[in-house]
Amino acid sequence: MNRKELVEQIHAKKSFLCVGLDPDMEKLPACLQGESDPIFEFNRRIIDATLPYAVAYKPNTAFYEAYGIQGLNSLQKTIDYLRNKNVFTIADAKRGDIGNTSARYAKAFLSPDGDFNFDAMTVAPYMGSDSVQPFLQEQGKWVILLALTSNAGSADFQTAQDYPVPLYRKVLEVSKQWGTPQNMMYVVGATKADMLQDIRRIVPEHFLLVPGVGAQGGSLEDVCRNGMIQGEIGLLVNASRSILYASKGPDFAEAAAQEAMRMQQQMSRYV
Amino acid sequence: MNRKELVEQIHAKKSFLCVGLDPDMEKLPACLQGESDPIFEFNRRIIDATLPYAVAYKPNTAFYEAYGIQGLNSLQKTIDYLRNKNVFTIADAKRGDIGNTSARYAKAFLSPDGDFNFDAMTVAPYMGSDSVQPFLQEQGKWVILLALTSNAGSADFQTAQDYPVPLYRKVLEVSKQWGTPQNMMYVVGATKADMLQDIRRIVPEHFLLVPGVGAQGGSLEDVCRNGMIQGEIGLLVNASRSILYASKGPDFAEAAAQEAMRMQQQMSRYV
Repeated sequence: MNRKELVEQIHAKKSFLCVGLDPDMEKLPACLQGESDPIFEFNRRIIDATLPYAVAYKPNTAFYEAYGIQGLNSLQKTIDYLRNKNVFTIADAKRGDIGNTSARYAKAFLSPDGDFNFDAMTVAPYMGSDSVQPFLQEQGKWVILLALTSNAGSADFQTAQDYPVPLYRKVLEVSKQWGTPQNMMYVVGATKADMLQDIRRIVPEHFLLVPGVGAQGGSLEDVCRNGMIQGEIGLLVNASRSILYASKGPDFAEAAAQEAMRMQQQMSRYV
Repeated sequence: MNRKELVEQIHAKKSFLCVGLDPDMEKLPACLQGESDPIFEFNRRIIDATLPYAVAYKPNTAFYEAYGIQGLNSLQKTIDYLRNKNVFTIADAKRGDIGNTSARYAKAFLSPDGDFNFDAMTVAPYMGSDSVQPFLQEQGKWVILLALTSNAGSADFQTAQDYPVPLYRKVLEVSKQWGTPQNMMYVVGATKADMLQDIRRIVPEHFLLVPGVGAQGGSLEDVCRNGMIQGEIGLLVNASRSILYASKGPDFAEAAAQEAMRMQQQMSRYV
């Protein structure tokens, strides 16, 4: 899905919601425990319930790899199920390695020849340009580079005070030369919404993937006020746990739909 | 495998060689193309051939994920094959995410309950302490944190000149508080061997995993002179392509053994 198509979907659904598909076997509703593939069945019902309110889905690979080969099978079924649903798909994989190795990860997650064929994947910037370039070479696909993450540990390096230019700013300034707003986005945590104005001065056109609204406590209003691009919106706001586990009962899908709709309604005021 | 056992293996084999198991279907010897699982068969024969000369094996997850579920099956068979061979096993995965997600990756790769149960895995530092801690909580297992990588892109952030303390030094100084020399190592590229003396002043006791000797051009002698710890050695020097693809003919395993032996003989002078 290219930028124009993504923006069209945002306007059509009046939503820039991304649903994080992070299935945790210990939190799945009891009613799914008898299924042959409870993770996929959970995802399928979450997707069906939230599809009117969400433009993007973001499985985090860790939650599948934790269940080994079986978990990866569930991931594959999930991405297959998302295809032809006109949504933007993100592998939240946070990969990055030397060039020949990043090329393998790009093949795994982005290439139409691979098993998964996502629209986008998250990439870590620590190893620099040649670790990111192979992902950018996948035609029509997107790199979503970590810039300013939502966790407390972001203070260790990303926002460390003893650097004249904080590392997250340097990552933005250097890496925006690597791709274009047509094939790169950035991860900026909602818990750092006060820094969004500053970030928008560095990358005025790039889409931002914003985790941290919901379970992690970030404010949607602050994110919109400080991070939105006129017309094209330029934001994908992710929620995972607050939607997935809105109820643990047999009504989990309805509860997820309610929570997604609540967020979509908030978002609709800005679109 | 704990530090004492690793040091014992290094002395027993007079080697601190780590073999990187990065199987590339396009480079595999033609004689394996008929196998039902050519990747595992390649790894099995490489392991058998190099076992007298190597103390550690490091599959890079990208090379398995690139082949989807089938590739992960090959990885699982490979790690099962390595078990009980008295070698140190490293998942070169370069993961790292918010705490609840890193805990999933730790389960996937390190936990005895997971499918893989490696001794160690590589982790990226960008997201800070709470992204690394879950890996350190796996009893008896190791985090190998990226510090100074062997690729050209390391100049973008790790060694950027405009920081008063280069980022890779800051990563070492901050992160050495997170674990101990009993459960943390660092990745330091052999192509940066001139920086090893400086690194040893910051982390005098930690083992270093050193890629970049071989195909990437780093010098084993420089690495040993600048990075070795008296008695305990404190180095695992990795070679991947130079061993795996020493020959593409039916003699690939013998050629791999020859190359591993050549490196082991060089190493034996220092042990």
